[in-house]
Amino acid sequence: MTTAKVGIIMGSQSDWATMKEAADILADLNIACDVQIVSAHRTPDRLWTYGKTAVDRGLHVIIAGAGGAAHLPGMMASKTRLPVIGVPVQTKALSGVDSLYSIVQMPRGFPVATMAIGAAGAANAGLMAAGILALSDADLAERLEAWRAALTDSIPEVPGDD
Amino acid sequence: MTTAKVGIIMGSQSDWATMKEAADILADLNIACDVQIVSAHRTPDRLWTYGKTAVDRGLHVIIAGAGGAAHLPGMMASKTRLPVIGVPVQTKALSGVDSLYSIVQMPRGFPVATMAIGAAGAANAGLMAAGILALSDADLAERLEAWRAALTDSIPEVPGDD
Amino acid sequence: MTTAKVGIIMGSQSDWATMKEAADILADLNIACDVQIVSAHRTPDRLWTYGKTAVDRGLHVIIAGAGGAAHLPGMMASKTRLPVIGVPVQTKALSGVDSLYSIVQMPRGFPVATMAIGAAGAANAGLMAAGILALSDADLAERLEAWRAALTDSIPEVPGDD
Amino acid sequence: MTTAKVGIIMGSQSDWATMKEAADILADLNIACDVQIVSAHRTPDRLWTYGKTAVDRGLHVIIAGAGGAAHLPGMMASKTRLPVIGVPVQTKALSGVDSLYSIVQMPRGFPVATMAIGAAGAANAGLMAAGILALSDADLAERLEAWRAALTDSIPEVPGDD
Amino acid sequence: MTTAKVGIIMGSQSDWATMKEAADILADLNIACDVQIVSAHRTPDRLWTYGKTAVDRGLHVIIAGAGGAAHLPGMMASKTRLPVIGVPVQTKALSGVDSLYSIVQMPRGFPVATMAIGAAGAANAGLMAAGILALSDADLAERLEAWRAALTDSIPEVPGDD
Amino acid sequence: MTTAKVGIIMGSQSDWATMKEAADILADLNIACDVQIVSAHRTPDRLWTYGKTAVDRGLHVIIAGAGGAAHLPGMMASKTRLPVIGVPVQTKALSGVDSLYSIVQMPRGFPVATMAIGAAGAANAGLMAAGILALSDADLAERLEAWRAALTDSIPEVPGDD
Amino acid sequence: MTTAKVGIIMGSQSDWATMKEAADILADLNIACDVQIVSAHRTPDRLWTYGKTAVDRGLHVIIAGAGGAAHLPGMMASKTRLPVIGVPVQTKALSGVDSLYSIVQMPRGFPVATMAIGAAGAANAGLMAAGILALSDADLAERLEAWRAALTDSIPEVPGDD
Amino acid sequence: MTTAKVGIIMGSQSDWATMKEAADILADLNIACDVQIVSAHRTPDRLWTYGKTAVDRGLHVIIAGAGGAAHLPGMMASKTRLPVIGVPVQTKALSGVDSLYSIVQMPRGFPVATMAIGAAGAANAGLMAAGILALSDADLAERLEAWRAALTDSIPEVPGDD
Repeated sequence: MTTAKVGIIMGSQSDWATMKEAADILADLNIACDVQIVSAHRTPDRLWTYGKTAVDRGLHVIIAGAGGAAHLPGMMASKTRLPVIGVPVQTKALSGVDSLYSIVQMPRGFPVATMAIGAAGAANAGLMAAGILALSDADLAERLEAWRAALTDSIPEVPGDD
Repeated sequence: MTTAKVGIIMGSQSDWATMKEAADILADLNIACDVQIVSAHRTPDRLWTYGKTAVDRGLHVIIAGAGGAAHLPGMMASKTRLPVIGVPVQTKALSGVDSLYSIVQMPRGFPVATMAIGAAGAANAGLMAAGILALSDADLAERLEAWRAALTDSIPEVPGDD
Repeated sequence: MTTAKVGIIMGSQSDWATMKEAADILADLNIACDVQIVSAHRTPDRLWTYGKTAVDRGLHVIIAGAGGAAHLPGMMASKTRLPVIGVPVQTKALSGVDSLYSIVQMPRGFPVATMAIGAAGAANAGLMAAGILALSDADLAERLEAWRAALTDSIPEVPGDD
Repeated sequence: MTTAKVGIIMGSQSDWATMKEAADILADLNIACDVQIVSAHRTPDRLWTYGKTAVDRGLHVIIAGAGGAAHLPGMMASKTRLPVIGVPVQTKALSGVDSLYSIVQMPRGFPVATMAIGAAGAANAGLMAAGILALSDADLAERLEAWRAALTDSIPEVPGDD
Repeated sequence: MTTAKVGIIMGSQSDWATMKEAADILADLNIACDVQIVSAHRTPDRLWTYGKTAVDRGLHVIIAGAGGAAHLPGMMASKTRLPVIGVPVQTKALSGVDSLYSIVQMPRGFPVATMAIGAAGAANAGLMAAGILALSDADLAERLEAWRAALTDSIPEVPGDD
Repeated sequence: MTTAKVGIIMGSQSDWATMKEAADILADLNIACDVQIVSAHRTPDRLWTYGKTAVDRGLHVIIAGAGGAAHLPGMMASKTRLPVIGVPVQTKALSGVDSLYSIVQMPRGFPVATMAIGAAGAANAGLMAAGILALSDADLAERLEAWRAALTDSIPEVPGDD
Repeated sequence: MTTAKVGIIMGSQSDWATMKEAADILADLNIACDVQIVSAHRTPDRLWTYGKTAVDRGLHVIIAGAGGAAHLPGMMASKTRLPVIGVPVQTKALSGVDSLYSIVQMPRGFPVATMAIGAAGAANAGLMAAGILALSDADLAERLEAWRAALTDSIPEVPGDD
Repeated sequence: MTTAKVGIIMGSQSDWATMKEAADILADLNIACDVQIVSAHRTPDRLWTYGKTAVDRGLHVIIAGAGGAAHLPGMMASKTRLPVIGVPVQTKALSGVDSLYSIVQMPRGFPVATMAIGAAGAANAGLMAAGILALSDADLAERLEAWRAALTDSIPEVPGDD
């Protein structure tokens, strides 16, 4: 049994290089997460079970990364009322525009909170999950505010030559 | 119990205006078909059942039309080994490029035979289904050849003023 | 003083035709919302104040719709840790692809939960907000589940001729 | 005389790196195939002959890969009633979007079953051919089901660090 | 027997609304032309014959208009050494970007002189044909120069209110 | 206190490789400039202050480079009446099309003088700033004319083999 | 002899519907302007003369609108050191993306200050011209600040039902 | 004085790597050509003179290559009635889509015979020039037919492993 409130899922091993950014942000913010490979096409039954049991397992947010036809986030959104955050993984031929359109253009009824293509999007998925959890966790809200303030403080006033 | 070898499914009532073209071609070729609304997101369990029972119900080919995120054809391809023909329905903002990318960019393992965007694609889905069935139905093969010859014969030599 | 947990903002009066879909969904789910026009470029100070006071005013989620350069959702995300849901409004020349890219391609640190272009995206923004609030509101969770079940039940088995 | 039921054709030697994926899948499934270079523009008469004799030579399915203007799949579809599966080969300047549009946007009357751009699309072309042949070959149907099950079984539950 | 040096061909009756612009320009310049419907997919044999006999029939330039997959100009270029001018006809879903890519992205060996999408492109096809014929027809060269000068003279100095 | 009339700002250190081209052109033309990192999202208050004090600090032109959602140029244009020149920085997934659309598609009221994507655009931003300053600086006008003449003179008549 | 400091030029009469927005803004701000049709292709000599004499005629800024290949702004920038503001006019097939790319993607040496596609871009061209002239005209600077403040004040707090 | 009938021009030295393909084809076909750098923006007067004297210098066809805003082919078409063949050079950010749109989307009156993006397009420009010259040069017509036949003969029947 997991006590993680955030589930990170992805369609294949190759997506992990991108999705690890989400896990890293969550770790930075001291948020437990559960990481699994769930493929919409190759393991549809795993997706079904994951979605159907998500609430009962205590999950609050699901981060789903996928590339190409990228059906994982949208299908998960159809199986659970939990907020699903979608990360379009960059692809070889279409650079992730295919992933982006497949994830963001969901029909009325099944929102997917779509992030930017690639690693920045994955990191932001972690932050979006944190922002959601912080609504009912004052300590996390503080940590998130601190993370944001530190990011602001990290910006130098002038660019340095590399 | 249905004896239709071709199933036509679509994500919503509004897709019918497009998908009717497939049904009309099949009717022209005297091929029975079974038409249903199956929404990947709104009726995922219906999709599951449809895919799982497709072979046993005697279906040979499935034509699936959808627009936007358009997960229906790809998810059906994940649930059955039967050939799935995908029709990208034209959309308001992205003109069906979203539908096209979501349907055609399937990952290794789960092909969707993607047609052109819109009505021409739906008609061609019917013809592709006919071409597949004709492989083991000599009468249909003849009817299909005749349909093609008639199309060729219908082309005038010079354009007429409208 | 407002007791609404959801704020809906948009860049101009002309966005209201789209964003009203979000308000309607929230009304369907009996969720109070506060609706304002906040333009990133024309009323930047209003945006600043809105973002800085959002937590203290009791907001939990902000839905921001904008078209074209569409800086409103991203700038709001920079001013508050609250989850910001972005709705790309369809535009005349670029059909909302400009809005989509400007909203979704946020840099690391400032996620915007981007929805589909146009009215379906606005409706889904309302549902995403509901999904977030439902995490700490069991009654709302039930209403949301019921809304989703009703959507599923509303799908006919076969398409009707229009 | 060939007994292969699947013909793989491509516009040039450089397409072989992509199209080999189709041949490999067919080999995995123990399906004989006939591989040839047929260029729509450079060897149009070869294309004509290929199309005109395809049925008589015992072919059931034709897989055609091409890049850029990519007329090969569509022209083949105009010369034979056999199902033609098109594979858009990735291109240098336009990444295969040119190939995709040229292959998928076929007019009413001449469907091409279009696959994803590049190697995944070629592999899927092999699987689509298998799915078609399996309709009248119970042994192949079993092998295809087994191939699909093995793919599902190959997916680990959690991602590994590379 | 035709004495026309310019052949105008198009894939279907519906292209005539666009291609008429080419015929009109040629008429303005007193250049005879031969207009036919030749469909790459529906009448491939007509295309073959047209291309193979083009030189012997006295044609110097072929103007070919097509939309969507738009294989006509490129296939004609494969069948004759005569200059082929391609006109991408505007399409419903992709606005003629599909036509443009299919016509312009020809492989090494088979150039198609591609014009702008739609009516302006068709008119320019007529002018391009005139420019080619004018190389060996001093009278036509003068008429073409005069046409160009008249176009320049027709431009007012300031815009008028409509 | 600065006496520079041109301010160069950029969203992050990584933009400097591109934006240095603007600084180099300004140096070539002997125009002082002030270079700072100002992030629309990470340092919004720095942006606010920069914009509000720009006129009083003696700035005449602001060059702003940013990539992705790229809100910096547009937000600066909302905070000052000074001409803002925007440089879309090339991005990984979308090659800077996202940056371009986010910068150029500004709503009525807040123009951003958008340059080409990447380094050429940054250099041209420097030249555009010079062209503006030259309107009230006859010496600079002469230097700019000379720079342009030298560029023209630098073009060889025939290409050399590399 | 003109005393206008702003020249508005456009490629054809049909662009005036768009470019009138620039003239209107300039009129609102009490800035005289000179409006002419100058076509890069149809009246290239007019363009040459316009550019060569622009400085001597007292022009400070040139606003150039064009659609499609849209060479006017860039060619004008090659003929004068004055700031050239480019307005991409919306087109039928490509919606102005062609105009935008042709105007904005200028090579190093010849900047064009590119505005948004269509009417909003034309209005902003007027404002950009005003912003440039205001650098050496304190009265205009005040009028521009007032125009901006009035725009801000015109935004209602909440949207009204239409 | 040149006796070349084909002029090859390009906007910069960097285009030569692409445009050399045109010169090579012409050399293969024993057609003399004149190669120059002519920049629309950097050497507009050279462009003017080139265009104005082209007929008198005995040129029959002009091949113009350019990238980005790519005004060279279109401006040359405005200065001479000779057929102008345009080659869109591939660019860094937009892969030559900018070059393609800027070259192909010419307004009514000034056709540019546009080729594919990059090296294949440049080679085809040479072949298009040859096809035009062959209309009044029977020997060249024979050489061109032979070149085409040799290309056809060079295609192997089956692909070889690399």
